[in-house]
Amino acid sequence: MSYRVALLVLSDSRARGEREDRVIPACREQLAGSDLALTEAEIIPDDAEGIVAALRAWVRSGRVDLILTAGGTGLAPRDHTPEATRRVVEREAPGLAELVRLSGRAHTPKAMLSRGVAGAAGDTLIVNLPGSPQAVREGLEALLPILPHALETLLGRARECGAEEGAAAAGGAPDASCHAPEEEPAHDQTEADRHLPPH
Amino acid sequence: MSYRVALLVLSDSRARGEREDRVIPACREQLAGSDLALTEAEIIPDDAEGIVAALRAWVRSGRVDLILTAGGTGLAPRDHTPEATRRVVEREAPGLAELVRLSGRAHTPKAMLSRGVAGAAGDTLIVNLPGSPQAVREGLEALLPILPHALETLLGRARECGAEEGAAAAGGAPDASCHAPEEEPAHDQTEADRHLPPH
Amino acid sequence: MSYRVALLVLSDSRARGEREDRVIPACREQLAGSDLALTEAEIIPDDAEGIVAALRAWVRSGRVDLILTAGGTGLAPRDHTPEATRRVVEREAPGLAELVRLSGRAHTPKAMLSRGVAGAAGDTLIVNLPGSPQAVREGLEALLPILPHALETLLGRARECGAEEGAAAAGGAPDASCHAPEEEPAHDQTEADRHLPPH
Repeated sequence: MSYRVALLVLSDSRARGEREDRVIPACREQLAGSDLALTEAEIIPDDAEGIVAALRAWVRSGRVDLILTAGGTGLAPRDHTPEATRRVVEREAPGLAELVRLSGRAHTPKAMLSRGVAGAAGDTLIVNLPGSPQAVREGLEALLPILPHALETLLGRARECGAEEGAAAAGGAPDASCHAPEEEPAHDQTEADRHLPPH
Repeated sequence: MSYRVALLVLSDSRARGEREDRVIPACREQLAGSDLALTEAEIIPDDAEGIVAALRAWVRSGRVDLILTAGGTGLAPRDHTPEATRRVVEREAPGLAELVRLSGRAHTPKAMLSRGVAGAAGDTLIVNLPGSPQAVREGLEALLPILPHALETLLGRARECGAEEGAAAAGGAPDASCHAPEEEPAHDQTEADRHLPPH
Repeated sequence: MSYRVALLVLSDSRARGEREDRVIPACREQLAGSDLALTEAEIIPDDAEGIVAALRAWVRSGRVDLILTAGGTGLAPRDHTPEATRRVVEREAPGLAELVRLSGRAHTPKAMLSRGVAGAAGDTLIVNLPGSPQAVREGLEALLPILPHALETLLGRARECGAEEGAAAAGGAPDASCHAPEEEPAHDQTEADRHLPPH
């Protein structure tokens, strides 16, 4: 199973072409050999409305399973990515953002300054990463072991937790990894259910 | 001092009786010997409105001090527990949700996919746990050392922090644990104060 | 470069003068020798409206770069500091709150009960700390290595990340610390941009 990934780079200077982008190649390299393939990428300025529009366009397109953003997560006056992302996602996944910070902290204490968020918009997952190529690599290194399972679950394709539980009850090994999914996918929920506002 | 605990299991298939529930026994076993007693349990489907109604009914009943939920915290299309819980709590306690994820991470990296939240609704504490019996056990193992103090504080019965501080000033050992409570319980706050909206 | 720090102590009994405050001296001692100078301090009761008013007055005054709060972050009925703070900040910085809890956890598991938040209101950073002198010291010890960089970035004075990236590309050491800032400061954003609501 392969998943389609879009990368949105937030950078005023790179959007104007004044600086060479090194984040897109870093992302592509880090995903090489995984189940995730970088199929689209865009560089836009640190503008809140523009970020919201770009995220929504990808979510609606149905062309991507995961949107990564790079940049705009700090405290600089133009850093709006988390606020823009929160306007697009319906169900936040704070653990993914915590994981990016915790794993970054192993490299530098400044990683805790990243304000990134993560969450699901419809059946698309969105995860904010800090803006340097190094931080993108480190964040993806931490996320890659769990992203395929996250996407499988979000798309309603994850195997049922109960199966393993039953096996464990029958003498098999308990499935300690069975944290997130626990039900067969349900296809009868209404649109309103899917778009429950986060607050 | 003993606290009364209600467990809300979110599971479409178990609510229909198609699968045997193993979460309630796991919870009861894990609480055995602690100051927390499982006094009520219910299994309902993964429906946002139903979850909100069940949580509110227990909060209003005055019969329970702590509500644990199990399930519905992942990214599956029917996972709505965190959003439903956030509609019921007035004061979020993000550290409890972080603790569940961090302790789960010691067993599996997928624990970071749990989107669970925690917080107070009136004088009832609500904590979301993932849905597998194993995850419920691990989450409770991490929470049990601090839940009695959390409930004591929420109910306005915690000893005053200042006492220890004074003892420390007078030559006693400093109370490094004196993190949360710092005031004598106040009984004069208005209903509006108690129900300050989270945003 | 030196930054101006205000400390807001939330305590019903200390505001009434019934108990001696030991948090202000603890904060001053912990900041000694750093780039942060405690220039103002106030002790007020645990009243949500009063906290909001005090925070806003300091933010608008332009006299302080960082506001620390101490107290009111627990689950006691009168603990409203996180909710009050969230009403004042426009851009939350959850990693700073996570860092305070994680570092406190090394001393006591109860540190995870602190509900503190952090974030930027205009160009002022606000960080909630628990209320005991010991917890204030521990929290500042964890924050001090990154607060100057956080304030430098918030004030739009941080060096550009791209410079280090270029140096790394040219054979220099990669700058693993370049997590938060990635752009030259922009001074042309509108007031509306600066005050983007968090939701």
